[in-house]
Amino acid sequence: MPTPVDAQARPPAPRETMSRERERAQGTFDLERLTYAMGGGESDVKLKRKFMFELERDPLFKLSDIHDLTKAEIRERTMSKFASMAYYVTNEPVAQFQQRMNVVSVADPAFWTRFGVHYGLFLGALRSGATANQMSYWMSRGVITLQGMVGCFAMTELAHGSNVAGLETTATFDDRSDEFVIHTPSVSATKWWIGGAAHSATHAAVFARLIVKGMDYGTKTFVVPLRNPKTYQLLPGIAIGDIGKKMGRDGIDNGWIQFTGVRIPRAYMLMKHAQVTREGEVREPALAQLTYGALLQGRVSMVADAAVTAKKALTIALRYAAVRRQFKTGDNPLETQLLDYPIHQRRLLPLLAQAVAMGFTSYRMTALFEEMSEELESFGSDSDEEETKAVLEKLKETHATSAGLKAFCTWNALETIEKCRASLGGHGYSAYSGLPSMYNDQAVQCTWEGDNTILTLQSGRSLVSSYADAIKGATLPGGLSYLNSLPEVLTTACPTDAAALELDTLQAGWDCVSANVVKQAHEKFEQALKSNGGITREEALELCSQERFVAAKVHASGYLFRMFREALIELASNEPADNGVVATLEKICTLYGCWAIEENAQHFLKYRFFSPSQMDAITAEVTRLCAELRNCAVLLTDSFDLSDHILNSPLGRYDGDIYNHYFAHVQAANPHEPVAPYFERVIKPLIEREDLGFDDADEIDLDEELKEIQEEREGDGEDDKEEEAEKVDKVKKTVDEPPK
Amino acid sequence: MPTPVDAQARPPAPRETMSRERERAQGTFDLERLTYAMGGGESDVKLKRKFMFELERDPLFKLSDIHDLTKAEIRERTMSKFASMAYYVTNEPVAQFQQRMNVVSVADPAFWTRFGVHYGLFLGALRSGATANQMSYWMSRGVITLQGMVGCFAMTELAHGSNVAGLETTATFDDRSDEFVIHTPSVSATKWWIGGAAHSATHAAVFARLIVKGMDYGTKTFVVPLRNPKTYQLLPGIAIGDIGKKMGRDGIDNGWIQFTGVRIPRAYMLMKHAQVTREGEVREPALAQLTYGALLQGRVSMVADAAVTAKKALTIALRYAAVRRQFKTGDNPLETQLLDYPIHQRRLLPLLAQAVAMGFTSYRMTALFEEMSEELESFGSDSDEEETKAVLEKLKETHATSAGLKAFCTWNALETIEKCRASLGGHGYSAYSGLPSMYNDQAVQCTWEGDNTILTLQSGRSLVSSYADAIKGATLPGGLSYLNSLPEVLTTACPTDAAALELDTLQAGWDCVSANVVKQAHEKFEQALKSNGGITREEALELCSQERFVAAKVHASGYLFRMFREALIELASNEPADNGVVATLEKICTLYGCWAIEENAQHFLKYRFFSPSQMDAITAEVTRLCAELRNCAVLLTDSFDLSDHILNSPLGRYDGDIYNHYFAHVQAANPHEPVAPYFERVIKPLIEREDLGFDDADEIDLDEELKEIQEEREGDGEDDKEEEAEKVDKVKKTVDEPPK
Repeated sequence: MPTPVDAQARPPAPRETMSRERERAQGTFDLERLTYAMGGGESDVKLKRKFMFELERDPLFKLSDIHDLTKAEIRERTMSKFASMAYYVTNEPVAQFQQRMNVVSVADPAFWTRFGVHYGLFLGALRSGATANQMSYWMSRGVITLQGMVGCFAMTELAHGSNVAGLETTATFDDRSDEFVIHTPSVSATKWWIGGAAHSATHAAVFARLIVKGMDYGTKTFVVPLRNPKTYQLLPGIAIGDIGKKMGRDGIDNGWIQFTGVRIPRAYMLMKHAQVTREGEVREPALAQLTYGALLQGRVSMVADAAVTAKKALTIALRYAAVRRQFKTGDNPLETQLLDYPIHQRRLLPLLAQAVAMGFTSYRMTALFEEMSEELESFGSDSDEEETKAVLEKLKETHATSAGLKAFCTWNALETIEKCRASLGGHGYSAYSGLPSMYNDQAVQCTWEGDNTILTLQSGRSLVSSYADAIKGATLPGGLSYLNSLPEVLTTACPTDAAALELDTLQAGWDCVSANVVKQAHEKFEQALKSNGGITREEALELCSQERFVAAKVHASGYLFRMFREALIELASNEPADNGVVATLEKICTLYGCWAIEENAQHFLKYRFFSPSQMDAITAEVTRLCAELRNCAVLLTDSFDLSDHILNSPLGRYDGDIYNHYFAHVQAANPHEPVAPYFERVIKPLIEREDLGFDDADEIDLDEELKEIQEEREGDGEDDKEEEAEKVDKVKKTVDEPPK
Repeated sequence: MPTPVDAQARPPAPRETMSRERERAQGTFDLERLTYAMGGGESDVKLKRKFMFELERDPLFKLSDIHDLTKAEIRERTMSKFASMAYYVTNEPVAQFQQRMNVVSVADPAFWTRFGVHYGLFLGALRSGATANQMSYWMSRGVITLQGMVGCFAMTELAHGSNVAGLETTATFDDRSDEFVIHTPSVSATKWWIGGAAHSATHAAVFARLIVKGMDYGTKTFVVPLRNPKTYQLLPGIAIGDIGKKMGRDGIDNGWIQFTGVRIPRAYMLMKHAQVTREGEVREPALAQLTYGALLQGRVSMVADAAVTAKKALTIALRYAAVRRQFKTGDNPLETQLLDYPIHQRRLLPLLAQAVAMGFTSYRMTALFEEMSEELESFGSDSDEEETKAVLEKLKETHATSAGLKAFCTWNALETIEKCRASLGGHGYSAYSGLPSMYNDQAVQCTWEGDNTILTLQSGRSLVSSYADAIKGATLPGGLSYLNSLPEVLTTACPTDAAALELDTLQAGWDCVSANVVKQAHEKFEQALKSNGGITREEALELCSQERFVAAKVHASGYLFRMFREALIELASNEPADNGVVATLEKICTLYGCWAIEENAQHFLKYRFFSPSQMDAITAEVTRLCAELRNCAVLLTDSFDLSDHILNSPLGRYDGDIYNHYFAHVQAANPHEPVAPYFERVIKPLIEREDLGFDDADEIDLDEELKEIQEEREGDGEDDKEEEAEKVDKVKKTVDEPPK
């Protein structure tokens, strides 16, 4: 039915829709207090705001044009940022600088990595592996301030990644000259993916097999100079190339390195742990595990980064959903805001709850890591057996917990970005939405610093071993405490239908189901050991890898829920009850718990913690909580406290004025061209081309002619043969008689 | 423990490992026959091979360098391919040309789209909307051969995507001049994402609201000239810009268009359906649904494309997994092939089974679409009521089936690419692996031609309505036939533990669970209708959107299984029993059925089709089948029949020689530079910088001085005041007396 044009309803401007969203949420919670609660406290939040403000004004941290820079331009800009950050690294307290880097990692992940290659990996390798004299030597060479040297971390090889023990590069001790000879024996041993190698590094921390007198002592670390720091010319025996285009993080100059008989002084091998004397005696460390402790810091910071990255994507998606209108429903004369659709709420709000859970968990994880680091630092050759045991236990706990969390949190963040991107419809496919590059940058977090699948299996392996400890009567710490109440926890069930949605019940459910999946993995392992004669423990573990994977997955979801809930309990004792902060977080915590149960429903049903109808109630609760939190969804994005500059997406703007800014952004990034640059070369020849004119071939009138030729051949067969013979003679003559 | 270097085992070269894989699989199945079975038959497979061979030799289809081209270069190369394809489109039978395009879509998705914008969308709009006279007019203007015009399809707007009825652009009839005035009333009405608009199109099929005498008749289609075909200058009133950088498919010149009072003749409105007479009388079509029939072709071809794309990603990942070695297990002196790890088999082989299922389903889907198209084409204004009803039923069935399949198959393909990419570890992050760009190209398939979430809900809505029909006693066709045996199907269960893994049981399970989730959605809908007074059907449908989503998801998985199985039964009657083809496909079909059940386990448990221990048996069967199919995994990738040129990934090479070719590829793509181009500008100033020298500030000796100043001030207070007064007088004088 046609409608009169004059009578048509006009939607309010997006800015207005956005202000109404904030009005609507008024009184739900104290925004500033919730921001503090989720941001690690008032002082951290204020520091973060200061850093965001500084970045926004720093011309080198311009973000709006990054999607249209070439790889070469991105590389140069990324390197340009080193100078000011190197200033802060030496002039700011460590904790404060780390906070700064947390902000930088959200604004510019590639810079964060490239800078981190020197300060996190290269310097980290020195810190954990160098003797005191070695350390002061490298400090005098400028390693702390980047004055005179820039380091990179040459571990992985073309054919060798996760398995460090399988690396091929050799460091052969030459006792005549007191040197090591660093050598790449084959193409597959080429150092690969080395961040900083292609352009910026003067030195590398090289992982190579120590060979002394024909014996292979496994992988150790050596500092190898790559370039002359004055001219940046490659040193003799060093071949380096650019790894080239990557999925994301193109600001990092990843390179490959081949060493051909490169000689370094013996003192360039890091000798805090393993040692080689002047005479070629090799001394192995008592505790090889300590060597890799520093690598854990990367994982821990990735959990925090995953939380913030997910919050960034969700801020864009939820604000867009608040102002975007699509289809009319019911009697509404206006199109409906996306955020009003139950399915859209369900697409985004459980992910928001998960991001908040990851955020709280990351603070716990950081605290655990710091405890461990302190113990590790005070640990020395004079430590007694008990101290050694304590530090190893701590290292093991940090390792197992960080492995599983690193894997699932980086996966969660990646999935969140993708779901946010897709929730923007077509606009999510525009580079200027900011989400495609977020995805491409995040993807590698699931691979480096321990491939997620491998880490997951390690976490599952550690759970299997904890289960074995538990049935032997050991008392397990923190996140594993549910294994302390075996066997009751395995058979517990939701007490009543009415109690199904309480936080205590959800916790009991996670404990029950986590214990059961861990038990299942343990049983499968034992069974594999028993039923396959002569099988090693390693092989038996491979045979239960699917069960280990499931155990790690369920355990990690339950762990996030537990950490969220513990933070909530702690908060409840400090926060005024009337400001809505605790009440709001309680809803978010319940949403996370219920939704994660829904996602893992098969286990809750299989182990009969919930009945099918209780599961339906869980599903209904997720839908209900989504609808309830929808009302303050925009205010929740405000509490994530990310500036428009950091968000770098016209579609996620604070003020909601998305279309005008998106349009302006697209126009600015793509200046008008009167015609395509290739118009004359390609388009004009195409549309003005003429048909090939094969039709003209009819003019040849071939078939009549062929008939004539054939008749002639048949009639004058003999004559032809004679003629042919004459021709052949003529040709022969020409060939035999040389030209005069 | 150190080991003697001389005694170390050396792994065989990757090429050798790869040949052993093919030897190992020998005798499992007849490769050529399996290739025909999965490729749509012998003649289609041979045609496809011919096309791949042609592409490989065509310099314009060079693929190895695409990752390092700029956006401008990709755009130009993409456009260059138009000429030869335009030749084939007019010189080849339609069916054969479609086969060619199926190959092209895998080799170059951006070209496929850009070319398809003209031939699929613009020409499709003419075919379904133009009268006979209009059609011959545009044919005489060169629409078939691109000689004189190139079309684009201007539907979506900046603020309006999926809801075509909500578009803002107006086409106002001016009865004095017999013209329409095309106008963009606001920024949000800017035509957006229009492929071909930025550079190549001369004309657009514009979707705009038809306004006649102040009345709005809703969205119709108008052909609007954009550029002078001779000069490509924009016509008056047309503003066009480049949309710029996208997540993928940068070869397409997506643009935005604003119309400012652009006049077109009345005859440029497509009038097969809605019509406007010279006098301004508007005649609406009896069957508005028929207008969008042509849009379905895109969806149908996307199901086929999803299957091939998934197979392409899996070929790379499985071949890489066959030659990549990592970690030692057991007593093996060599590192283990990734493909030997149970977890790696589980990551890839179920996805392979799913890709095969999608392939078989796509053939069925294409057949259904072709039936519908034939009926639609023979349909005219002289068709009687029965014919009309038949064509509408067919359209509805095709719509509902294609909606759900388009959504889940494009999602499946996207997920498959991502999982394959991640399974390559770090190398999956290299652009040269081919997988990052596959992901970025595929992502948009989940959004355009109907956003997947919206299509899923449409599919769910159609299932709810089918359920209502079924309980009223209607007999439902094909993939919905399980609803014909209500209510028995709802309460059926796996008969015995022994029967759990049979294909018949799996089928019964899918029928039972599909019927139950559809029932649940229907009940939730009825309940929403009843318990909310005065609610519309539309609103009630929104309230059960989660249940509709779940219903559509389960139904789609079950549908893929059913189609696979039907194809298998058909094949079994034609294929010799001893060549292993049917036996192998049966395993793959069982793997798909069991794995998809595992993925949807909660429903199979909830509706008690399987007991928890039967579910464990399903899980064990997935693991077992993965291990069994591992033996012929490489040969299965061969049966997907994709050339190395099409794969364009040194890591997925047929011969397995991955490291040498990957290294050579990286070197060729990134020529050696002696130092970074920005060395003098950025790196040298950084590493040669000196400290800021704030320490020197001590030389100022400020505090002693300040004390002196203060003492002077306190001692000679009066003098100072006098001096001050003098100074003020002086200044006043200067101010009061104007300069001479």
